[in-house]
Amino acid sequence: METKTLLYDKIAKDIEHQISQQLLRIGDKLPSLRVICERYGVSQSTALQAYYQLEAKSLIESRPRSGYFVYRSPKHSLPLPAVSAPGISAPGAIHEIISRVYSDMGRDGAVPLSLGVPALELLPVAKLNKGLLRATRSLKGSGVEYEQVQGNENLRRQVARFYTGEGQPLRSEELVISAGCMDALSLSLMAVTQRGDTLAVESPVYFGILQLAQSLGLKVIELPTHPQTGIEPEALEKALAAKKINACLLVSNFNNPLGSLMPNAHKQEVVRLIQHYGIPLIEDDIYGEVYFGAERPRSCRSYDESGLVLWCSSVSKTLAPGYRVGWVAPGRFKEQVLKLKLYHSIAGTTITQEVIAGFLETGRYAHHLRRLRHILHANALRYSRAVAEYFPDDTRVSRPQGGFMLWVELSQGQDTLKLYEQAMKQKISIAPGNMFSLQDQYRNCLRLSYGIPWSDAIETALQRLGKIITNNKI
Amino acid sequence: METKTLLYDKIAKDIEHQISQQLLRIGDKLPSLRVICERYGVSQSTALQAYYQLEAKSLIESRPRSGYFVYRSPKHSLPLPAVSAPGISAPGAIHEIISRVYSDMGRDGAVPLSLGVPALELLPVAKLNKGLLRATRSLKGSGVEYEQVQGNENLRRQVARFYTGEGQPLRSEELVISAGCMDALSLSLMAVTQRGDTLAVESPVYFGILQLAQSLGLKVIELPTHPQTGIEPEALEKALAAKKINACLLVSNFNNPLGSLMPNAHKQEVVRLIQHYGIPLIEDDIYGEVYFGAERPRSCRSYDESGLVLWCSSVSKTLAPGYRVGWVAPGRFKEQVLKLKLYHSIAGTTITQEVIAGFLETGRYAHHLRRLRHILHANALRYSRAVAEYFPDDTRVSRPQGGFMLWVELSQGQDTLKLYEQAMKQKISIAPGNMFSLQDQYRNCLRLSYGIPWSDAIETALQRLGKIITNNKI
Repeated sequence: METKTLLYDKIAKDIEHQISQQLLRIGDKLPSLRVICERYGVSQSTALQAYYQLEAKSLIESRPRSGYFVYRSPKHSLPLPAVSAPGISAPGAIHEIISRVYSDMGRDGAVPLSLGVPALELLPVAKLNKGLLRATRSLKGSGVEYEQVQGNENLRRQVARFYTGEGQPLRSEELVISAGCMDALSLSLMAVTQRGDTLAVESPVYFGILQLAQSLGLKVIELPTHPQTGIEPEALEKALAAKKINACLLVSNFNNPLGSLMPNAHKQEVVRLIQHYGIPLIEDDIYGEVYFGAERPRSCRSYDESGLVLWCSSVSKTLAPGYRVGWVAPGRFKEQVLKLKLYHSIAGTTITQEVIAGFLETGRYAHHLRRLRHILHANALRYSRAVAEYFPDDTRVSRPQGGFMLWVELSQGQDTLKLYEQAMKQKISIAPGNMFSLQDQYRNCLRLSYGIPWSDAIETALQRLGKIITNNKI
Repeated sequence: METKTLLYDKIAKDIEHQISQQLLRIGDKLPSLRVICERYGVSQSTALQAYYQLEAKSLIESRPRSGYFVYRSPKHSLPLPAVSAPGISAPGAIHEIISRVYSDMGRDGAVPLSLGVPALELLPVAKLNKGLLRATRSLKGSGVEYEQVQGNENLRRQVARFYTGEGQPLRSEELVISAGCMDALSLSLMAVTQRGDTLAVESPVYFGILQLAQSLGLKVIELPTHPQTGIEPEALEKALAAKKINACLLVSNFNNPLGSLMPNAHKQEVVRLIQHYGIPLIEDDIYGEVYFGAERPRSCRSYDESGLVLWCSSVSKTLAPGYRVGWVAPGRFKEQVLKLKLYHSIAGTTITQEVIAGFLETGRYAHHLRRLRHILHANALRYSRAVAEYFPDDTRVSRPQGGFMLWVELSQGQDTLKLYEQAMKQKISIAPGNMFSLQDQYRNCLRLSYGIPWSDAIETALQRLGKIITNNKI
């Protein structure tokens, strides 16, 4: 593994050197993967890793069916959306539009730019199947019997080892396995809030969090959020000081839909604040593994010693959504979370927990994540470039530092609910901005997923979308 | 399948005829299985089926390592426990004793008579593993992708077909798949109740139902319950008339721990009552398939046309607890249940749903259930006989008509919390009666599971238990 990493690093560095020395110029075609394989005596996958790395750095671009080229920047790069300023208007009815988008998603082969998960092609299906077969042998009773309430022991050990290895110490007994991340959030919220309490969240924020909070009878305060650095700690402090908040729920790393990443200083400040006010923080870190920078960003939890942070994640966005395997490290609320899990569902699915444990133990998960990050980073750049190319000049777009969502802000007056209908007629599914707030805002925004491998069809879809938006301008 | 059924029926009838004609007398040894195989030209499993059938009718008994004998009745048969009369005293702290029993269950190889599931030996593990392999092939994406919120379409179709075939019409679109029966109960309770509401249940009743109700902030009314016919409809009517109840939760068929079976007239009356008062009934029918009579008992749901019954079940007590596959037919509350499922966990585990769908579709489930029922019925009789043999004469015991629990009532003054400690020292785990009510009652009762195949070890454990009880008498 180590040798292979060094090899593709070396190839990437060689080419980067040639570009910086102008031996390769903007627009030049790069050697084909076959040529690289021969020249360096490496496998196709190593050559591809090198090119992914260069692409992730925006040094080269791939053009479908033509090969790789030294990057030609788009006509211009688009500005970021403004810091959000959630209003205090009455909640809008987001449920209907959300159900609508959900049920339309795969309809008649529509291009699912509204997708919330990476495409199946990006997931290691064959290896997971082998893991299933292995799990039927390694588990007493082949996974037919109840698992422990707290979850598979080996899985907890492997999750703890994985994050400890990434510099975020975690012990297996601190973890409770859940049925995916939503179940982890749901158990956490039920453990620390009561009907009528107020929950502070980012804005815009994943609609599933809003729906869950509403179904538990919670009021929601949406905090002003920066498209790159997440919530504004001053805004949180103000709300806390006004004693308006009973709990916080933050997607600290690569918030869906913004892709924002809270700087470490902000994370420390938020942890200081919740400790000062004695308020629990539910940290949704489901996108933390999909970082485009040099290393895995830290969690708020890693700065907390009070046990007030309930840290939630899963493999649903990176490996196997259908396995329903996630976890929460509930800090001082562990007993409450365990009880709720026991009372509401006894235990999680036995066999899929064992498969994920094996995936972590053998290093397959880390290996898969490296590839997934390269692809998604390259995708982020390709999709952003297409938006800059095809959308009107006054469009603003997020610059995600991880995850797989672009947040696009159109000019005032544009209505993405209308755009949604128009796009569906052309078999393109998008997520209207309105879905990401309870306050009937973001009507001129939309979320685009770049979880689908880049292709002519994607480029055409974005081009068409740009044309509709341009035509909608008054 | 049909031919085989007729064959073992024929063998059983032959032997029954010989017993009734006194050609075989009480205590006589029956021909060995090998002899039966040769005599009738059948397989070992067909011969075994015939003997199971005779055992289930109490006509013969098996003695470990000795073979089968014409049944010798015990010294006497024990009376039934009295109809329960739950008090109105303050809730006791059942949580501690429940956690204790849970964590002790498999300790140091203790005989788990407190078990809540059939032993692994009774489950078709190899066939389920084959089903898993098949499911990785039949599912697009091998089950790695999210399942529909409502659940696997084929599973819903097969469940509907299965129950329709048993005379309880059900359409696939009426079903919502859940993560086992507790999840179905939890979704149902969240859909129809609010914090502070009052829920009517049987008494004694499965402690998991009590804990779930408490965790949702519900008050609980425990209704007087007959050990053979379940709740007393008059008591329910009285409570309804006093407008004390917001919802009911009943285990209509083979209540855990009593094994009681509501007669059809009672089911009709209960449905009439809830319709009259407009109160939802959550029906927990998880034991309905484990009947010892001639046919599957009807559900309350089958008498309801108002949509007020939310009918819940699963395969957790009959096939694969660790698969977490159950379902609810929520009647008029379907939209609420679907929303709650989406908000709290998005969807269930994809692959295990497909395996269960296949098990139903191919008839393997029905086949497995026939065998399971025979074994459990025989076990019920053997365990009851041992209780009559080894426990004091003033013991009362339920006569379960299905399921896999015996409810044992000892003389007043006996304390099964103390008995629990004494038994654990002899490596026998029982469930003290106190766990089955919030009203600190049933201190002289215990639940024994007969889900473990009969053996010398079981007989010895029951004998020892009887000795401790006898010695505890003042």
